[in-house]
Amino acid sequence: MKVKINNKISDIKSVWMENNIVKLIDQRFLPHTLKIFEARNYNDVCFAISKMVVRGAPAIGVTTAYGIAQAIEQNMDIDIVVKLLKKTRPTANDLFFAVDYMLKAIESGKNAVDSANKYADDIIDKCKKIGIFGEKLIKDGFKILTHCNAGALATVDFGTALAPIRFAKKNKKDIFVFVDETRPRLQGMLTSWELKQEEIKHAIIADNSAGYFMRKGEIDIVIVGADRIAGNGDTANKIGTYEKAVLAKENNIPFFVAAPLTTFDFSIKNGEEIQIEERSMDEVLFIKKHRIAPKGSTARNPAFDITPAKYISAFITEKGVFNNENINEFAINLKF
Amino acid sequence: MKVKINNKISDIKSVWMENNIVKLIDQRFLPHTLKIFEARNYNDVCFAISKMVVRGAPAIGVTTAYGIAQAIEQNMDIDIVVKLLKKTRPTANDLFFAVDYMLKAIESGKNAVDSANKYADDIIDKCKKIGIFGEKLIKDGFKILTHCNAGALATVDFGTALAPIRFAKKNKKDIFVFVDETRPRLQGMLTSWELKQEEIKHAIIADNSAGYFMRKGEIDIVIVGADRIAGNGDTANKIGTYEKAVLAKENNIPFFVAAPLTTFDFSIKNGEEIQIEERSMDEVLFIKKHRIAPKGSTARNPAFDITPAKYISAFITEKGVFNNENINEFAINLKF
Repeated sequence: MKVKINNKISDIKSVWMENNIVKLIDQRFLPHTLKIFEARNYNDVCFAISKMVVRGAPAIGVTTAYGIAQAIEQNMDIDIVVKLLKKTRPTANDLFFAVDYMLKAIESGKNAVDSANKYADDIIDKCKKIGIFGEKLIKDGFKILTHCNAGALATVDFGTALAPIRFAKKNKKDIFVFVDETRPRLQGMLTSWELKQEEIKHAIIADNSAGYFMRKGEIDIVIVGADRIAGNGDTANKIGTYEKAVLAKENNIPFFVAAPLTTFDFSIKNGEEIQIEERSMDEVLFIKKHRIAPKGSTARNPAFDITPAKYISAFITEKGVFNNENINEFAINLKF
Repeated sequence: MKVKINNKISDIKSVWMENNIVKLIDQRFLPHTLKIFEARNYNDVCFAISKMVVRGAPAIGVTTAYGIAQAIEQNMDIDIVVKLLKKTRPTANDLFFAVDYMLKAIESGKNAVDSANKYADDIIDKCKKIGIFGEKLIKDGFKILTHCNAGALATVDFGTALAPIRFAKKNKKDIFVFVDETRPRLQGMLTSWELKQEEIKHAIIADNSAGYFMRKGEIDIVIVGADRIAGNGDTANKIGTYEKAVLAKENNIPFFVAAPLTTFDFSIKNGEEIQIEERSMDEVLFIKKHRIAPKGSTARNPAFDITPAKYISAFITEKGVFNNENINEFAINLKF
């Protein structure tokens, strides 16, 4: 991803490894300050994941892979390292996927650093392809709504929902992005930060106003990411996604979910089987460290919601754009 | 409204006049601190309305009425005062209604302070009746969603959307209120503050999660206020109201708008004719004084939206509960 450092444009990833140091864009300081976190050992890597120096399931997976590679290079006890890594974010599926991937690679005698790099490159490659396929859905002059941050920060590079937007810009299409601020954790600010680096025109909006702009005809297409997609296409994603999907349908606006095929879980029949994590009520009662609620008030804070497949126009994947019917055929063909 | 000051429960209004000073609960300091703002002349009154010391259409109307009464008492040029008042907030119908009311009263030789007091008392009386009629819609055990603050703070006393909730509590119904935080200005915190004073069970939620709770069957009824209602029932209210109305319809949840008949503007055919105020983008880019967006990011900030009548189950007014068809008949009978 493009990043401006001292007015110079650099091309960096959100996670990489250099001289046995796992380097990460420290997302705790964004969107205000760009800092690089240097994880010099497995304790640092565990800290980075659990304290959300890095966020976004694919980026967490890559950090895990590099953490294991680093531990191998440093002759650490891999069983202990894996045990600690698994405790950092127990709900992130990619973390466990990355652990299995690395253990298999090591077992079969492959070089750990090469394997971690391959793991990262695969994700980058998938995001790039999502970008190339998804870009075709964005016409010149389109105004696009996105929710949360499904960008390079969450996926090493390009992003999922942001990849088609990046490619549309690259192809000189005149586009504008409405960025939901995405309460309670305000990940929209990360999306705005990424778009600013790429000089993509956009405006941050309160989550409440997405429907207003849809009704006014100011939004042509919605593209979001996904955390988990059930066999029938029901999609778990950041809280608020369901609302935007219902509103898009009501206003005849196509609603796309951009995700690699690894996000599909064909062992799950439908969204009802996906468990929704309720996070600390303090995320609602406070913004950053500033209390916004009356003292003693309580809150509810579901972190994700399920968007039923009927609201989703199609899925943008690294293998192409599929609607609900052909994603299932595809699944059968690929023997998911 | 009940207010706890130093653990003593007092009964106060959000706006009143005392010794020619217009006194207002300063809503900029809530929900953390209860302060009274003293408007000593029309400049202070205009400041109070435009800077949202006072907010909520009926409370703005009462503040306007008291502001005019004060200006008369202070021998000010009423034409100038009215001109300035009209510029403060363009969407609230009550402001214009209060101006006309006061000018007519003065023209017919009535005492201005008495007229303003009568205007305030009328609103309190109307809210009380809205509470009594609306309470019948709330069954024992109901979970209610409300958006923004249509409470006593917004309407001198009782509130519009909160009046039925207050009366349900008074009648010992077991109720629970989901309070949308209502970004960008977080008026949900005011609602939470009011509910806390009355010891009504509630939880603040991110605006993004209202749809989630609806879909889970955790919301039985939605009640919101209104800033202006067109002849066909299209309703202007706080940004996000439209989203919640669409989601309520999608989930077969009744959606009620509680408002006095003065909020209806039968001279306006439909919502398209209602002007929507876009406020400063800083309200989105900052929360209180804390910058949340990247430096240089832009935002869009419509303050209201229009909910088409088809999403509204009925209107709760001081004359009873009306659906779209009979509110129009009613309008004809009353010669609006």
